[in-house]
Amino acid sequence: MKTIFVSGTAGSGKSLLTSKLLDYYARNGAFAAILNLDPGVDNMPYTCDIDVRDYVDYVSIMQQYELGPNGAMVMANDLIASKIDEIQNDVNKVNPDYLIVDTPGQIELFAYRSSGRFIVDNISTEEKTNIFLFDGSLITSPVNFVSIALLATSIRLRLNLPTINVLTKTDLIGDKLRNILQWSTNLKTLENAIGNETDGDTYTLTTNILRGLNLGGFAQGLIPISNLTGEGFGNLEGALSRILNLGEEVEG
Amino acid sequence: MKTIFVSGTAGSGKSLLTSKLLDYYARNGAFAAILNLDPGVDNMPYTCDIDVRDYVDYVSIMQQYELGPNGAMVMANDLIASKIDEIQNDVNKVNPDYLIVDTPGQIELFAYRSSGRFIVDNISTEEKTNIFLFDGSLITSPVNFVSIALLATSIRLRLNLPTINVLTKTDLIGDKLRNILQWSTNLKTLENAIGNETDGDTYTLTTNILRGLNLGGFAQGLIPISNLTGEGFGNLEGALSRILNLGEEVEG
Repeated sequence: MKTIFVSGTAGSGKSLLTSKLLDYYARNGAFAAILNLDPGVDNMPYTCDIDVRDYVDYVSIMQQYELGPNGAMVMANDLIASKIDEIQNDVNKVNPDYLIVDTPGQIELFAYRSSGRFIVDNISTEEKTNIFLFDGSLITSPVNFVSIALLATSIRLRLNLPTINVLTKTDLIGDKLRNILQWSTNLKTLENAIGNETDGDTYTLTTNILRGLNLGGFAQGLIPISNLTGEGFGNLEGALSRILNLGEEVEG
Repeated sequence: MKTIFVSGTAGSGKSLLTSKLLDYYARNGAFAAILNLDPGVDNMPYTCDIDVRDYVDYVSIMQQYELGPNGAMVMANDLIASKIDEIQNDVNKVNPDYLIVDTPGQIELFAYRSSGRFIVDNISTEEKTNIFLFDGSLITSPVNFVSIALLATSIRLRLNLPTINVLTKTDLIGDKLRNILQWSTNLKTLENAIGNETDGDTYTLTTNILRGLNLGGFAQGLIPISNLTGEGFGNLEGALSRILNLGEEVEG
């Protein structure tokens, strides 16, 4: 069983990508299943096989502990870790070739509190990988791009998983797509774009950070996709195969 | 009127620090007021002067748009920007010397969606600064420290404000405090600590990023505080004065 975590900021397209990946594996004759880890999700574009909401009930937490929406959301996400045995049992019963994990809506509750890393470390499967979504609609400037790349790197360190960076909503962003792809592959182009937009401290800070990030390969291989049109899915599937199957085609 | 934004991950101590800052300014004869920007907060350790909840009602949004808790939280935070005129009016009526802004519980909804930057840019006051809280209880390893420092830098770029980095919960973290302060001031010590904990790709990635961050001065002057014991507040207040009052004492 191989595990694919799908992560990204709220609204970046995690659940939709999760459902598209399920379709992809089904079409290719592989047995994939979805684990929903978001206690606060209401509508999902898929039927999930394992659901943390069977064990963590957001509304009960609000009532029982007299918490507001923020407090209940934090507690619900923290409680996920305590349900690892039940979740693992359910996963074992389904026993798919590919387990696709749709992570909680707000990434910070998953990545920066303890439960996310705990789940990542303790879901007992073989190869694991994380897909991090750069929300195309949030990248309105080169400095924004660096900001999201920093977040991606921060989360990569926090979860300690091989990570595939994906740019979503390519159908929405028009001509910006070309710019973003240039920024992700050519440090000099990105530095020039930042220089046109900023000066002084911000320019110095950003370009210094960039050089450090670039040595670490921060946005190498950023894969643009559209959940709407399906554009880019071939590339994403190739990247998944390289990490999960040592470059072989999908295992059925 | 000078503005102090208080930001950090959920549970890092934003609201408590906000109330302590209010006390501090009151003790020093300055007129400070609090703007709460979190539509989803339930209990606050202060009485706020201006409250976004007067204009954005989380529960009504859930009901009216039939949204789950996640969706309603995203929408409530996005709506803040559309209420800037009302908020600004309320701020002008109060007209404090220091406006302390308690930002939404989940920092990503404020910093990575559009409303946060919009509010930061359009609250029409003179000097502005941002206090970013490193949650001491989340920093359990040197790689974790780098991860939070990356998040802090990402948010600094996103909000484009002079930023004061503060380490909270020093009363809870015991001996780790000394380590964290060493990591924040001495790159070599931090690299050695990371080398003891990781190897291979993670070590290379982390140390390369660090060198870039360090050139940008990422965690220089990290100020340890305890909201509980009040330790470190003198240093924080000095840092605020240097940014807001050009080094002068509090203006009453």
